Amino acid sequence: MSLSKDRSLNEQLAAELRGMVHPSRVLSDAASLVHYSRDLGPFESAPMPAIVVLAESVEEVQHSVRVAGLRRVAVVPRGAGTGLSGGAMALQGCIILSLERMNRILEIRPMDEMAVVEPGVINADLNTAVEPHGLMYAPDPASHRISTIGGNVATNAGGLRCAKYGVTRDSVLALDVVLADGTLIHTGHDTFKGVAGYDLTALFVGSEGTLGIIVGITVRLKYLPVRSRTLAAFFDDVPAAAAGVLAIGTARVQPAVLELLDGNTLQVLDSAYGSNLRRRGGSLLLIQTDGFGAEAEAEVVREALVNLGASVSAESGGEAERLLDLRRNARGDDVEDEFRVGEDVAVPRSKLVHYVAELERMARDHNVLLKVVAHAGDGNLHPTFWIRTSEGDAGLARLDSALDESIGAALALGGTITGEHGVGEYKLRWLSWEQGADLQRIQRGIKQLFDPHGILNPGRAIA
Amino acid sequence: MSLSKDRSLNEQLAAELRGMVHPSRVLSDAASLVHYSRDLGPFESAPMPAIVVLAESVEEVQHSVRVAGLRRVAVVPRGAGTGLSGGAMALQGCIILSLERMNRILEIRPMDEMAVVEPGVINADLNTAVEPHGLMYAPDPASHRISTIGGNVATNAGGLRCAKYGVTRDSVLALDVVLADGTLIHTGHDTFKGVAGYDLTALFVGSEGTLGIIVGITVRLKYLPVRSRTLAAFFDDVPAAAAGVLAIGTARVQPAVLELLDGNTLQVLDSAYGSNLRRRGGSLLLIQTDGFGAEAEAEVVREALVNLGASVSAESGGEAERLLDLRRNARGDDVEDEFRVGEDVAVPRSKLVHYVAELERMARDHNVLLKVVAHAGDGNLHPTFWIRTSEGDAGLARLDSALDESIGAALALGGTITGEHGVGEYKLRWLSWEQGADLQRIQRGIKQLFDPHGILNPGRAIA
Repeated sequence: MSLSKDRSLNEQLAAELRGMVHPSRVLSDAASLVHYSRDLGPFESAPMPAIVVLAESVEEVQHSVRVAGLRRVAVVPRGAGTGLSGGAMALQGCIILSLERMNRILEIRPMDEMAVVEPGVINADLNTAVEPHGLMYAPDPASHRISTIGGNVATNAGGLRCAKYGVTRDSVLALDVVLADGTLIHTGHDTFKGVAGYDLTALFVGSEGTLGIIVGITVRLKYLPVRSRTLAAFFDDVPAAAAGVLAIGTARVQPAVLELLDGNTLQVLDSAYGSNLRRRGGSLLLIQTDGFGAEAEAEVVREALVNLGASVSAESGGEAERLLDLRRNARGDDVEDEFRVGEDVAVPRSKLVHYVAELERMARDHNVLLKVVAHAGDGNLHPTFWIRTSEGDAGLARLDSALDESIGAALALGGTITGEHGVGEYKLRWLSWEQGADLQRIQRGIKQLFDPHGILNPGRAIA
Repeated sequence: MSLSKDRSLNEQLAAELRGMVHPSRVLSDAASLVHYSRDLGPFESAPMPAIVVLAESVEEVQHSVRVAGLRRVAVVPRGAGTGLSGGAMALQGCIILSLERMNRILEIRPMDEMAVVEPGVINADLNTAVEPHGLMYAPDPASHRISTIGGNVATNAGGLRCAKYGVTRDSVLALDVVLADGTLIHTGHDTFKGVAGYDLTALFVGSEGTLGIIVGITVRLKYLPVRSRTLAAFFDDVPAAAAGVLAIGTARVQPAVLELLDGNTLQVLDSAYGSNLRRRGGSLLLIQTDGFGAEAEAEVVREALVNLGASVSAESGGEAERLLDLRRNARGDDVEDEFRVGEDVAVPRSKLVHYVAELERMARDHNVLLKVVAHAGDGNLHPTFWIRTSEGDAGLARLDSALDESIGAALALGGTITGEHGVGEYKLRWLSWEQGADLQRIQRGIKQLFDPHGILNPGRAIA
């Protein structure tokens, strides 16, 4: 098809979309197309969408999906575009359906401990809004200040305090979803418990826009902890820190946050912030306890870790809180002359030590750089492998080999290829390593059922 | 079809099943058929199965399902038969596939805080087994001493401590499932977090045996609380007790247990156990806090409830614990000369008072007896309506009218027809009141995808 024919088709498409969506929000200028073509997945370049729609209502989403269905054009739904697996990256000639302007908090019901939001609400904004009621929205991906709840739901996002408070799915009670034919449905229940019919809500959570477009989210809120205590515990090395993780479990303390940082991560933080963490230890555990037992739990944790030889920071100094803020919000990985890929595997908790040792061996074998942080309470690791961009294709090939080996090793330990980021497009190459033909057949069947013409984010999430 | 032809077909079916399952576990004697025809759902009589298979292995389940598929005979999977909605009741001429003998705890992995069990393991038995490791399996339906984990998963069973620890779904990480064609699949992940592919695990949880037969369950364990405190708070009436529930929330305490009993329930307990609860108040809240903050939380709760005028029992007396045991384990509803139906709706928490008032009005209007207990922390109510059997059909008609009205009222308040018991067969009559045609169409599509010949517990769970 010639470029000019493409263009004329796209103009027809735009005209149809503008039939309902205000023309100022149906974008086809080059800058917009480029801007909306990418998310934060590890891709060097992205295909170009045909059109970007900035939807402001359910009806506009329905109209956009219907137009796409009639013309058999792919629709890629998108929140803030902060996804790390390429699930919101454009497909060539697609409609990017941005939900970022559907950002109203529709209801806060303090006595019911629930809220209803549009998908474009920023995670942290909901927390700000419910805080005066002594409530919180628990799922807290590291991107919580910039990512949307719709995107969090689409990827079943995790975060730091999942071990205690659960992942996104555990906080979602009901969903409003626009199906591939434009039908609007309401799944789930507006109560804490409810078991009528199949759990369609859970099916949509984490489906990455491939089964329907999420346009409304009813969430359960939890009590904002009355207080919290934060500890920083330095260990000689990762095995010692991982032993600390298990010791906390043996003491039957469920921290709200339990993060492990390896020596290289400490070094990277030192370079970025002028600290001297690496000199204080080869691995760091950051622990936050919360609730009415926060002090008692922190004391039990402190004792258990000191017994293992850790150097545990005084609680009063505020240093531990600062480190946790750093961990929570530090990005700092966008170094111009390096190419980095952050991974997101999970392994059974007891396998943390072994897996990190394996990662270190792989980094040596493949001559790539490595740092590891882990939501250790969950066994969810984010190893980052990187090379200097000056190493070119040979470096990229070594990086890819290390990545492949790291995924294979996680699976061999009973792990998964993605703990919380989603498969998106990037992790499709490993999905069949984890899930056999039977599982894939079932999932294709479900996709076919919900999206017979394959217009909803095709080629993502499932193989 | 004549009875003798029926019999000869059943004999062929039995012979085929005995090709793999030991003949002593393929039952067709009248006593066995009657015994396995019923669960604890509110049905006066049950259809007769053709055959009962007491499976002892995955292979036997696969064989049974394959035989059923070839002959287009319905299979009704069954755990302990303690379901309250008739989901495990026989279908005429079906194979009852009992999984009660698949009762091995296959693995306990204390460091990973996981266990793998066969479906026939009794809920309480798993808790006994993991207790020495300082761990617990959190979901605790009132039937926990007699119900199987497989049955709990099939219904997504709730229990008393769900408000804090979640329902069954929240503790299930992975499932082994035999599909309608006999294929064995493994869904989910053996890690706390995992988002690869669609959430098939959640789809099977609560599907009541209509999508596949669950033959293996990987559960997440939680820490056994280091201590707990139990309070009993007597109020003048239900509205006062419901205000107490909200006051506990305002104090940001998440109790492990928060049960509300109305005056009639206290009276029934008094009759059964010779206590004098009803004289002490018109409604009772039973509260258990647990974990490192148990005492502090109990003190905050006590103060909040005393401020509302409640009479709160001394913590040292052990009375509160005894009352909680009573609530947890009391059945006592099997009174010979009464016909009772225990309901299982859920409403938003703030609607508890209004809903109970509505229930009381309905009981008066329809001249039926009523008592109400509620997992108040969840907004999950179990009203029991009853009549004397001597009232005959007229009484039953009044009972049915009251039930219908109670369900309609729960829905009108934003509630659901079933908080934790499942739809089974009994609640099908109300399912379309809650779920519209679009939702039902999707669910039928999923059923068709998993079970094209409709042999898996047909006519249950969905319409």
